[in-house]
Amino acid sequence: MRTLAVVGTGLIGTSLALAAARQGVTVYLQDSDAAAVRTAAALGAGTPGPPPEPVDLAVIAVPPSLVATVLAQQQARGLASTYTDVASVKYEPERAVLAGAPDPTRYIGGHPLAGRERSGPLAARVDLFQDRVWVLTPSRLTSRTALDRALSLIGLCGAVPLVMQSKAHDDAVALTSHVPHVMASLMAARLREGPPQATRLAGQGLRDVTRIAGGDSRLWSDILQANAGAVAGVLTDLQTDLAELLTALRDLAHPADRRSARSLGTLVGLLDRGIAGLDEIAVGHPGHPPRSASVRVRIADRPGELSRLLTTTAELGVGPEDAEVRPAGGAHGDLTVRLAVPAAVSVPLLARVTAEGWDADTDNHPAPTTTAGR
Amino acid sequence: MRTLAVVGTGLIGTSLALAAARQGVTVYLQDSDAAAVRTAAALGAGTPGPPPEPVDLAVIAVPPSLVATVLAQQQARGLASTYTDVASVKYEPERAVLAGAPDPTRYIGGHPLAGRERSGPLAARVDLFQDRVWVLTPSRLTSRTALDRALSLIGLCGAVPLVMQSKAHDDAVALTSHVPHVMASLMAARLREGPPQATRLAGQGLRDVTRIAGGDSRLWSDILQANAGAVAGVLTDLQTDLAELLTALRDLAHPADRRSARSLGTLVGLLDRGIAGLDEIAVGHPGHPPRSASVRVRIADRPGELSRLLTTTAELGVGPEDAEVRPAGGAHGDLTVRLAVPAAVSVPLLARVTAEGWDADTDNHPAPTTTAGR
Repeated sequence: MRTLAVVGTGLIGTSLALAAARQGVTVYLQDSDAAAVRTAAALGAGTPGPPPEPVDLAVIAVPPSLVATVLAQQQARGLASTYTDVASVKYEPERAVLAGAPDPTRYIGGHPLAGRERSGPLAARVDLFQDRVWVLTPSRLTSRTALDRALSLIGLCGAVPLVMQSKAHDDAVALTSHVPHVMASLMAARLREGPPQATRLAGQGLRDVTRIAGGDSRLWSDILQANAGAVAGVLTDLQTDLAELLTALRDLAHPADRRSARSLGTLVGLLDRGIAGLDEIAVGHPGHPPRSASVRVRIADRPGELSRLLTTTAELGVGPEDAEVRPAGGAHGDLTVRLAVPAAVSVPLLARVTAEGWDADTDNHPAPTTTAGR
Repeated sequence: MRTLAVVGTGLIGTSLALAAARQGVTVYLQDSDAAAVRTAAALGAGTPGPPPEPVDLAVIAVPPSLVATVLAQQQARGLASTYTDVASVKYEPERAVLAGAPDPTRYIGGHPLAGRERSGPLAARVDLFQDRVWVLTPSRLTSRTALDRALSLIGLCGAVPLVMQSKAHDDAVALTSHVPHVMASLMAARLREGPPQATRLAGQGLRDVTRIAGGDSRLWSDILQANAGAVAGVLTDLQTDLAELLTALRDLAHPADRRSARSLGTLVGLLDRGIAGLDEIAVGHPGHPPRSASVRVRIADRPGELSRLLTTTAELGVGPEDAEVRPAGGAHGDLTVRLAVPAAVSVPLLARVTAEGWDADTDNHPAPTTTAGR
């Protein structure tokens, strides 16, 4: 791919233009806001204005509701030989393109999963898409050339392609992006109604839950409108959980009869389902490396002894989050500290703690130099 | 304060014991879990077992529903001359203490606003409360001595005291802590019900919204039960917003009639209320220093020129988030970059950019050395 056009020089359009330009692609920039396109050009994202001849790929980087219209206009003008977009909903734009674009075979839907709270070309970053998933949603008419060009762009941006049907994509992002945004907004909207001084008690938890509510409300209303059915589906299930929870809480606030045990069960059940749900997004997450061995260390029941052990293990990247402490049994009141570690760490860790004078063993590798503190 | 007892050596109890012990206070540790108290002692948080004579202050660090019972037991045994607790709800424990404790004058409710996702003594940190708000909720019977001892403990921990009525505290934390936890759990619970591969599209937004759902479900069900009325109140208002939103989304999914404009208004209205709500927790936040001056810089409309300016301003801590770009007017197509900065930064920034050859001015201070790029 040698030439690229970007229609819409906001955060996403400008960031991908920067990435392509850095890789030597000639980039042409357009936007209905003249200041935005000039800002993008001044950042080095490309040249303002239409290209002298059709480019290899045009990226329609406009809100979901405008994708099909802008695509039809640009295709009629012959802007490019293939087209993609970056809107965060895919089914409705695809339907509109199939219904109204001059040549739907030259279009493939796209959605890079990257963003920032801030918008506009000044927020753009050349590495915005590095190692991020970039979904492509070919329609039944999409040509092989359109797919290949979009894959080239994804490669230039350092992103990871994932091919899905447009409907499956929209169901997925309703759950993972659009409903979370609604939840953040519902929560943040309550903060204006609180008692005086309430927000002095705000902590990091509240800030995390509400952070994404700060996004551009026009863009987000467009996204939610374009995926209204899927978002409503998830929210309807969530509304059922909320109604059950409210019934339980009202009962627990006035526990006059024997329903309280069941209400408490409803409460614990929701909390436990939430904990289980977190596993779905923790699996394969870089923050959760496999831990497949344990090292047990016997320490004396003396003040500071456990801190001394954890200071030693910290040198090998093993912290208190990896430790469990139990009485070792026997007359002296010793403690057994069980450390859960990656298999590769267990032997050096064992060597280190025994060198410091503690009895230790591991289930990964027999430890001939130690007397096991079982 | 010279002596302290901690009943309940979990995360909070052990952390405050560590802070007090470091300041030279003699600390005695108790817990119904023998391993927990020995772990805390092994970390250097104090001595296991009851004190030889009544201590100056005892901290009852147990779940909300147990505070009054444990306090009554310990007071009957003469553990301390004054008592406080650290439960995250305050009205119901206060009511129970007033109704059943041997001497309610010796008790003051407390709630340090600090925590971690992890629990137990191994997660304890000596600086857990540093610069955090620590609410005290004196009852109508609380003695001056009890208040003073609790304030001493807060000082030892480096925290900031905030005195409130117990009911006002509970209304506030329902909004800022308990309902956010419920929202995180409601969202996370949906993740198990999603389509295949959906969670491959999970990003940081979803992780932030759901993070606090990972807390201990028994402790949290106890907290929510103890504050059920206030939590239900906030959730009822939120449920109303959700119902209106769902009606709007269902309409927008099938826009067969002229209600769509009103539905879109509902959607935008909620998002805008969310954005406004975020202001409530941004005011006075360290991340938002006052910005009271602007510097305007005129740059040529050349690729890379804006990047060069922003690289220069970055040396003074001024980034793209502080910038607006507009056409400067005139024949050459120059751009004006307006930088919003703290007043103290405007003059050195002006000097720096003019030294680099750009025309610039500021509204903070007349700039005799520049030709203003107005």
